[in-house]
Amino acid sequence: MVLTKSTKDLYTEYVDRMRKIADVKYAAAVLEWDQETYLPPKGAEYRGRQLATLSEIAHEWFTTARLGDLLQELHQRGDLPEDQHRNAELSLEDYNKQKKFSPAFIRRLSETSSRSFHSWLQARTANSFSLFENDLSAMVGLKKEEAELAGYEQHPYNALLDNFEKGCTIALLDKVFASVRGPLKDLLDKIAARPPVDDSFLRGDYPRQPQWDFGMGLIRQMGFDFDAGRQDLSEHPFTTSFNARDVRITTRVDERDFSHMTFSCIHETGHALYEQGLPIEYYGLPLGEYASLSIHESQSRLWENNVGRSLDWWRTIYPRLQATFPQPLKGVSVEHFYKGINKVAPSLIRTEADEVSYHFHVMIRYQLEKSLLDGSLVVADIPTWWKDKYAAWLGVTVPDDKRGCLQDVHWSHGSFGYFPTYSLGSFYAAQFFSAAEKQDLTIGTALREGHSEPLLRWLRTHIHCYGRRYTSEQLCKSATGEPLNIQHFLDYLSDKYVNIYSF
Amino acid sequence: MVLTKSTKDLYTEYVDRMRKIADVKYAAAVLEWDQETYLPPKGAEYRGRQLATLSEIAHEWFTTARLGDLLQELHQRGDLPEDQHRNAELSLEDYNKQKKFSPAFIRRLSETSSRSFHSWLQARTANSFSLFENDLSAMVGLKKEEAELAGYEQHPYNALLDNFEKGCTIALLDKVFASVRGPLKDLLDKIAARPPVDDSFLRGDYPRQPQWDFGMGLIRQMGFDFDAGRQDLSEHPFTTSFNARDVRITTRVDERDFSHMTFSCIHETGHALYEQGLPIEYYGLPLGEYASLSIHESQSRLWENNVGRSLDWWRTIYPRLQATFPQPLKGVSVEHFYKGINKVAPSLIRTEADEVSYHFHVMIRYQLEKSLLDGSLVVADIPTWWKDKYAAWLGVTVPDDKRGCLQDVHWSHGSFGYFPTYSLGSFYAAQFFSAAEKQDLTIGTALREGHSEPLLRWLRTHIHCYGRRYTSEQLCKSATGEPLNIQHFLDYLSDKYVNIYSF
Repeated sequence: MVLTKSTKDLYTEYVDRMRKIADVKYAAAVLEWDQETYLPPKGAEYRGRQLATLSEIAHEWFTTARLGDLLQELHQRGDLPEDQHRNAELSLEDYNKQKKFSPAFIRRLSETSSRSFHSWLQARTANSFSLFENDLSAMVGLKKEEAELAGYEQHPYNALLDNFEKGCTIALLDKVFASVRGPLKDLLDKIAARPPVDDSFLRGDYPRQPQWDFGMGLIRQMGFDFDAGRQDLSEHPFTTSFNARDVRITTRVDERDFSHMTFSCIHETGHALYEQGLPIEYYGLPLGEYASLSIHESQSRLWENNVGRSLDWWRTIYPRLQATFPQPLKGVSVEHFYKGINKVAPSLIRTEADEVSYHFHVMIRYQLEKSLLDGSLVVADIPTWWKDKYAAWLGVTVPDDKRGCLQDVHWSHGSFGYFPTYSLGSFYAAQFFSAAEKQDLTIGTALREGHSEPLLRWLRTHIHCYGRRYTSEQLCKSATGEPLNIQHFLDYLSDKYVNIYSF
Repeated sequence: MVLTKSTKDLYTEYVDRMRKIADVKYAAAVLEWDQETYLPPKGAEYRGRQLATLSEIAHEWFTTARLGDLLQELHQRGDLPEDQHRNAELSLEDYNKQKKFSPAFIRRLSETSSRSFHSWLQARTANSFSLFENDLSAMVGLKKEEAELAGYEQHPYNALLDNFEKGCTIALLDKVFASVRGPLKDLLDKIAARPPVDDSFLRGDYPRQPQWDFGMGLIRQMGFDFDAGRQDLSEHPFTTSFNARDVRITTRVDERDFSHMTFSCIHETGHALYEQGLPIEYYGLPLGEYASLSIHESQSRLWENNVGRSLDWWRTIYPRLQATFPQPLKGVSVEHFYKGINKVAPSLIRTEADEVSYHFHVMIRYQLEKSLLDGSLVVADIPTWWKDKYAAWLGVTVPDDKRGCLQDVHWSHGSFGYFPTYSLGSFYAAQFFSAAEKQDLTIGTALREGHSEPLLRWLRTHIHCYGRRYTSEQLCKSATGEPLNIQHFLDYLSDKYVNIYSF
């Protein structure tokens, strides 16, 4: 096809096409949000087919030859402004990747995913891995096929890692995890040698409505724009966005445990502030999207941990909390509270893990996925392998599959390669937070006074506003002056726990 | 194109195409539901374009030449089972109508609709018609264009009436309204000559939560399946459906007025029971859709008025209501309550109007729309025209636009030609209810005992199960033995008010 149009016209056509694809994808996201928040049970079946049709449209539109031609041509033309060139370049990368998968393959993936989600649910309820085994095997088979279709160097897992974090490889992750594993193990051992911290006050009588109101107050205080988003309830907390002016978060309330809702509010708001800070003028285009999943997670972790588990921040908020729940927090000082919410103790469940042992949960899943992909581990052996690794790496005994290898939903969705971004997110978070505090001294002062506007401003101008313009690595350099450096994370942990555990 | 496939294969292709179109339409309906219930204000703009893209897809798919060929061919083949033939026939009618509108026109309509919905909301809040005027003018312009594109005989309004009620014309409506206007005016005059009925107890202290719970109880009692639907809050109560197993209703709570929420619950549940009763096996096909808007409204009106404002029904429910709100209902007998909820007094708001003056509200809107469409009235003159007509026809003074021409959402959605179906619905309701009671004596007995299952069963088997198989007129004949006969409605009113007002 001869593209004789002007560059401006070609770019306009590209933008129009991308925005319509975004409309369909975001419409699907609304249906998914509704599915997790308000869908009546009998509605699930037809909702499934409605979602399948929308993803089919989005995939078909995005892989149409005309878009490919447009992107090739735009990429070659020399007269595109820099931001437009970057959009076209990133879309071309995405296009070339998506083209490798036939609609039939996409459909098989989506069918297997729905099937394994249901068998995972059944297996978890029945506490029996064998109910999930067949569908998980099918999913692993498809993921191997996907890796072959996508192409990779060295290891098939690299193709999957790239889905969530462009350019991420096992070479890189092996190095990063090797460099944190020793220091984290030392820290765990030092902490284990100290008297345990008391966090019993977190489990008490925390009624639903005041918890909800308190959480909503935190979200507002963090700078979430409720005119451009909302919070609802769902089984599992998540963040979704339909554009930067409509960002939805969800939470769950546990009346017997204060920490679930509060920290899910802070965590999801971290994600949501990123989404609300993406440039709306690039709606539907790469520069309007988040940089990568590890950068996304860095935003949630930064707020949840670096801010939300700091003594400075709680000093100003805690009196309000104590006034809201006078009974369970009776006689609990803010220092006592601070130590409690930072208690370190290896345990079974990743989502409830402390900031140190958390990364062992991730490393175990990383090793497991790598081994599944290269065939050195077979699906049937997962439960035993899991128990061995939890005993060896965290010193905990896994009593059953429900609290073991069945705890996470990710594999049922086919999300292999996702977990490592959780750790990378924490590492980036520490580095961003440390850079922000050094670059702008008002950030720390404001946090000590209970204000986070200067911090949010720094994140907006150093991270959010760039969308996908830079890779994670480039963004990290531009924001902090250096590439990912694990030392920031290790220093942050060590400073925190030396104080808390006095070792 | 030569269609050499077997009839069975052709029909399967038709069904597959229709179901995918339905997936997209219902996805749009989910986005619209969210827009009216949970959408944060800043999300409106992009929601508008997402909806526009979905309607564009649905329109494009439905007007594709291949579907036209399929429908022509199926319609001509003699070997289709009767229900399949009827589906193809109705789809062909729809196809021929939709083909008249270009995708660009559909997109303009959808975008203008989202925009005017928001300016209507603002205008109503600010109590200022001028904020709505521009968008409404644009909408009226588009509707005139639509009438020209669709084609019509005699009057452009006929093209729009046909959208909501196939075959409905101003000739027919002028005749129907002429035949009820006199008797209704006589009834109003007779009632006005009698001492007024007391309904002051309806306005009192009716706290939110107990009102909500009571309303939810009524909805459940009427047979609404909460596993296949839900109720939420919105500015303007409505019913929507994403398939027969996911039907959503909304309501609003007024803590100072008991009647708003209660009667909106009953009304919307009437609509919802129809949607839940449509045959799911025809998902996406005409036989799975409602017959017409007047038939839809007959279902809501039948429950709201013929059942929900009857003494029989309230006798069994009222003790529960009185126990829930002992203060405002102190000393109010069920007979007193019954008279109060049936009080006739011309007033400003259509949705709060009694069963007699209601139709004057509709007739005013009907005249107004007719005049807007033929250009004898311009948008800027609506507020004045409105005030004049309310003074002349109902003898009430309209104090402002909020309680005048801004009260209804319909025009912002472009729903011109919709209002007349509200009156037709009431007329059909009376006829259906009278036929049902005569055909099955257990219906009346059960209602007197507080049960509506026999009535719902009659509606399911005489109305709901047929979908769009019959026209309104055919359905009316098949269910009641005669075409629409206004006398049933007039008799119903006269019986009721002779009792209440003793004239």
